[in-house]
Amino acid sequence: MKVALTPWRFLERTERLFPDKTAIVCGESRISFEAYGRRVRQLSRALGRMGAGSGDRVAYLGMNCHRLLELYFAVLPGGVILTPMNVRLHPDEMAFILNDLEAKVLFVDDMFANLAASLVPKVPSLERVVLASSSVPSEEGWLAYETILAAEKPDPIGDLDVDEDQTAEIFYTSGTTGRPKGVMLTHRNLYLHALQNMIALGLSDATVQIVGTVPLFHVNAWGTPQYAVAAGSTQVVVPRFDPESFLSAVERERATFGMMVPAMLGDLTNFEGAERFDTSSLERIMIGGAPPPYSLLRAASKKFGCEIQVGYGLTETCPVISVATLKSHRLAAMDDEERYRRMSMTGLPLIGVEIKVIGDDGAEVAWDGKSMGEIVVRGDVVTKGYWKRPEETAEAFRGGYFHTGDVATVDSEGYLQIVDRKKDIIISGGENISSVEVEDALYSHPDVRECAVIGIPDERFGERPFAFVVRKAEGGASQEDLIRHVRERIAKFKAPAGIRFVEGLPRTGTGKVQKSELRKEFWEGRLRQVN
Amino acid sequence: MKVALTPWRFLERTERLFPDKTAIVCGESRISFEAYGRRVRQLSRALGRMGAGSGDRVAYLGMNCHRLLELYFAVLPGGVILTPMNVRLHPDEMAFILNDLEAKVLFVDDMFANLAASLVPKVPSLERVVLASSSVPSEEGWLAYETILAAEKPDPIGDLDVDEDQTAEIFYTSGTTGRPKGVMLTHRNLYLHALQNMIALGLSDATVQIVGTVPLFHVNAWGTPQYAVAAGSTQVVVPRFDPESFLSAVERERATFGMMVPAMLGDLTNFEGAERFDTSSLERIMIGGAPPPYSLLRAASKKFGCEIQVGYGLTETCPVISVATLKSHRLAAMDDEERYRRMSMTGLPLIGVEIKVIGDDGAEVAWDGKSMGEIVVRGDVVTKGYWKRPEETAEAFRGGYFHTGDVATVDSEGYLQIVDRKKDIIISGGENISSVEVEDALYSHPDVRECAVIGIPDERFGERPFAFVVRKAEGGASQEDLIRHVRERIAKFKAPAGIRFVEGLPRTGTGKVQKSELRKEFWEGRLRQVN
Repeated sequence: MKVALTPWRFLERTERLFPDKTAIVCGESRISFEAYGRRVRQLSRALGRMGAGSGDRVAYLGMNCHRLLELYFAVLPGGVILTPMNVRLHPDEMAFILNDLEAKVLFVDDMFANLAASLVPKVPSLERVVLASSSVPSEEGWLAYETILAAEKPDPIGDLDVDEDQTAEIFYTSGTTGRPKGVMLTHRNLYLHALQNMIALGLSDATVQIVGTVPLFHVNAWGTPQYAVAAGSTQVVVPRFDPESFLSAVERERATFGMMVPAMLGDLTNFEGAERFDTSSLERIMIGGAPPPYSLLRAASKKFGCEIQVGYGLTETCPVISVATLKSHRLAAMDDEERYRRMSMTGLPLIGVEIKVIGDDGAEVAWDGKSMGEIVVRGDVVTKGYWKRPEETAEAFRGGYFHTGDVATVDSEGYLQIVDRKKDIIISGGENISSVEVEDALYSHPDVRECAVIGIPDERFGERPFAFVVRKAEGGASQEDLIRHVRERIAKFKAPAGIRFVEGLPRTGTGKVQKSELRKEFWEGRLRQVN
Repeated sequence: MKVALTPWRFLERTERLFPDKTAIVCGESRISFEAYGRRVRQLSRALGRMGAGSGDRVAYLGMNCHRLLELYFAVLPGGVILTPMNVRLHPDEMAFILNDLEAKVLFVDDMFANLAASLVPKVPSLERVVLASSSVPSEEGWLAYETILAAEKPDPIGDLDVDEDQTAEIFYTSGTTGRPKGVMLTHRNLYLHALQNMIALGLSDATVQIVGTVPLFHVNAWGTPQYAVAAGSTQVVVPRFDPESFLSAVERERATFGMMVPAMLGDLTNFEGAERFDTSSLERIMIGGAPPPYSLLRAASKKFGCEIQVGYGLTETCPVISVATLKSHRLAAMDDEERYRRMSMTGLPLIGVEIKVIGDDGAEVAWDGKSMGEIVVRGDVVTKGYWKRPEETAEAFRGGYFHTGDVATVDSEGYLQIVDRKKDIIISGGENISSVEVEDALYSHPDVRECAVIGIPDERFGERPFAFVVRKAEGGASQEDLIRHVRERIAKFKAPAGIRFVEGLPRTGTGKVQKSELRKEFWEGRLRQVN
C-alpha cells in the first residue's frame, strides 16, 4: 500500500490525537491543534474559492505569525504552492519574485499593506490580495483573512489528490549574485525532512519550541512547522529575536527548544540579567546559518545548562542535512574540550542524506581534517530543482549530486567542517587558507567580540588574509597583539596581513556576515574576486 | 531529487560513519559495521552468482544468527526477495511455503541440514542450498556459506537499480486456518517503518539491543535489523529467550533495549535471582504479540527500573503500527496507576499510520472505551498485498484500508485497546464480552499465574466465557473464589461460567495462547465456532 508522503498527514494525525493541546502560541492567541486543523481546512477551502488550485502559487508577505503556520498546511490538500517572502528584500526584488512565480494570491500583514499596494500594479498575475486585518480598504477589492476563513466549512477534507512529488513550497535563495532563484520543495521532501529531524533532534510531543527567532520565512526556520506538527509539539511564535524576549518566552512557556544563528547565541550568552529568568526547561538550542566559534558554544552550553546543537543545511535541502551529534561509542574517550570542539563542527549527515566532499577531480577528498573540497549531497530532502530554471538545475545537479558551493574538510570520524564558501577560500602562495580557521584564532583572544576574515589581493602571494575586528572595548589589543596571537595558534602564513578595527560587521538579515561587502574595496576594478 | 527509499542506504551510511563500532554480537563473533557491510556485499554478489536476480526468492531456515542479519541486507541491491522461515512449522508446511514462493535458493543452519535434505526433492524450484557449516556434504552439491562469501569482492556496490515499491521480503502469516499466506513488504515499507520506529522508541547509536528473544523470523522481530542499522546501534543476538541468558547478556553488553512477548516478561519478572545481574543499563523493554496484564507491566517496570513499552503490529504492517506512549501534556494529571494502565494499552498510532476502528456499518466507533470494532489501517508500513493472492488481497483491503481482524475499543484520548480477535469475541445474551477483560480480572488475583478465556456454547445465552487457569501453587484459590473475584471486578455476566485448573496453556512458538486448541472440545461437531 502506498500512501502519498505529504505533511498534511501530520496535521490530521496530531489533531486527532492531541485536539485540546496548544499547537501555537502567537501574541495573545493560543491555538489548539483542533483549532489549528479547523482554521487550516477553512483556509484551504478559501484558497480553492479564490481560484488557487493545483500547481498555482500563493505568496506570503509578513512577519512571524500563526497565519504563516496556517498557510504552510492549507496549501497542501489542493496541491497549491506557497512562497513565504523575505520582508527585508528591496521592493523591486519582491516584484521580481512575485512575477517569477506568477503568483495568483498574496497574503499580507497589515504593516506591509502600503508596500503590497505598490507591488500589485507591477504583478499582473495577482488576482487576490488577502490582508491580515479585518478592516481592509474596500476600494482595493482586497479580502480580509478572518472573513474568508469564516465563510468556509471546517469539515474534514477527505481523500487528497496529491502526488508526493508535487511542489508544496518555493523558497527563493538570498541571491548575493544575480537574480534570486526559486527552490522547489515537494510534499515528499518536507515529509521525510520532518522524520529525519525528529530523529536527529529527539523531538516529541514534550517539545515546546520557540519559533521566529530566525524569521519563519528564512531557510533556518523551514521544515519547522512540519516537524513540530508531526511531533505534536507546541510552537511559541516570537516576533523577532532579542535576548530578553527569548528568555521571557522560555520562562513563560517552559520552552525546551530554540533555534538561532551564532550571532544571536552570542548576544544571548553575553546578555547580563539572564539569571533573572527561569530557563531550566531549556534542553536544546539548535544553531544554523554558520559554524559557531567553539568557545561560544561552550560558554552558552555552560551558562544555560542545555545542549547546543549545530546543524547545517541549505535552501535546497529543506534545510537540515547534518547535525554535529557525538558518537556514543566515542564518548568515554573524549574530554570536555574534545566534546565541545566536535559539537561546534558542521557535523554528520542525517539518515536519508548522503554527503560527499569532492575535489576538483570529482573524487572524495581524504578524511584527514585538512583536505578541502566541495560538499555535494544526495538524498530525500534535496530539491527537485529551481523553478523555471532547467539549465541552472542541471548545472547544480551535475554528476547526480546537488552541489552546495560550500567548502569543507572531513575528519577521520566523518565529521564535516565547513571552511568557507567555495569563492571565499583564500589561496596564498599555493596554500589553501580557511578564513574560518583564522577567525577562530582571533575569537580565542579575550578582546575580540566579532571578526571576519577575507582574502585580499597580494602581489607576492596572490592573496593574503585580512581581518575586520570588532573589539569588546576601545583601546584593547592592538593590531600587532592580535596578529601575534594568531601566529601563536595557527600556521604563520595564515595570520592576517592586516587588521582593521570596526564598530560592526555588515550582516544579512539573519546574521551572516556579508563578506562580499567587505571584499569590495579591495577587489574593485579586478576581473576576478580571487587570485 | 528522488532517491529510492531502501534500507540499503541505512547500511551504507552507518558503515561509513561507524566502521569500527560493533554492529552484531552473535555467539563468539563480534562483527563491526565495516565487516558487516563487507560481508553483506560479498553475500549480495554471491546471490547474483547463484542466479538469484531481481524478483527471485531466497529462503532462510535457521535459528537467530548473524547470517540472517546479513541476508536481510544482501538481498536488497539486486532486488532479490528474502523469506525467513519459521523453524517450528511442520515440514509439510515448509515445503508448501517454499513451493508457494518458488524459491531458488535455500540458506540452512547446520542443525536443519537433514530437514533441508528431505525438503529439497519436494521443491523443484530450488537450485541451490547454502549450508552454514564449511563442511558441506559434497555429494549433495550444496554450498558453504563462508566459502561463497570468500569468493566475492567486498567493494562498494555502486548505484542500485531498485524501485522502492519492489518487494524485499515475504513473510508468511502463521495461518491458524487454511494455508499460510505470504505478505510482501517493499523497500519503502521497511525504510519508513525504520524511521517511524526510531522516533517512537527513541533509538540512537547509543542503543544496544538484545535481539532473538523473539525469534528473528517472527513478526515481532521484523523491522529490527533495519532500524538497528539505521540508528547505528548494536544488536546482541541471543539464541532464544530464558531469563538468565537475557539478564546475563544485558549485563555483559550493557544492553539498553529488549523485546519480548508478555509470557517472557512474566518469566523475567518472576525469575528469582535477577538481582545477581547488573541491569542498570536497561532503559526499555518493548512488548509485542499480545496486550500484557497491567499488573505485570507495573511489576516488571518497578523491578528493572526501566520503561516497559507496549507495541502492536501485524505481519502485514512491518510490523509496528501503534505504541502505548503517554501524552506529555497529560502527565501532570495522571497518578501512577493511570500511567501504568495506559502504558499497558495497545496505544496510539505511530506517525505515518492511520488507524480507524470501525463497526459493521463501516463507520468509526465512538471513542468511549467501550464500543468495539475492527482495527483497519492505512499507511506507509502496510503491505502491498499477499503473494500471488489477488482475491485475498482485495478482500483484506476493501474500502482502502487493511483489515486486521483485530477487535478494539478506542478511549476518549484515542488509545486503542485490543479486546479480541474478531472471531474471539464472546457474545453472551446479546452482550459483547472481551475475553481479555475477563483475563485481566483473573490476573489481578494473586494466585493466578496464567489464564485464558474462551467462549463456550450455552443454551440460554448463546455463549458463555470459560477460563483455563494455571495457579502459582496447588491448592490456592478455588473455582468459586476466582469467579467471585471476577464478579467483584467486572460486570457479572462477564464472569466465567466455569474454570478448569491446568498445568499449562497450549502456546504457539512465540508465546501466544492457542485458543483454538482450548475451544476444540467445546465446539466439536458444531457448524459454527461462535453462537
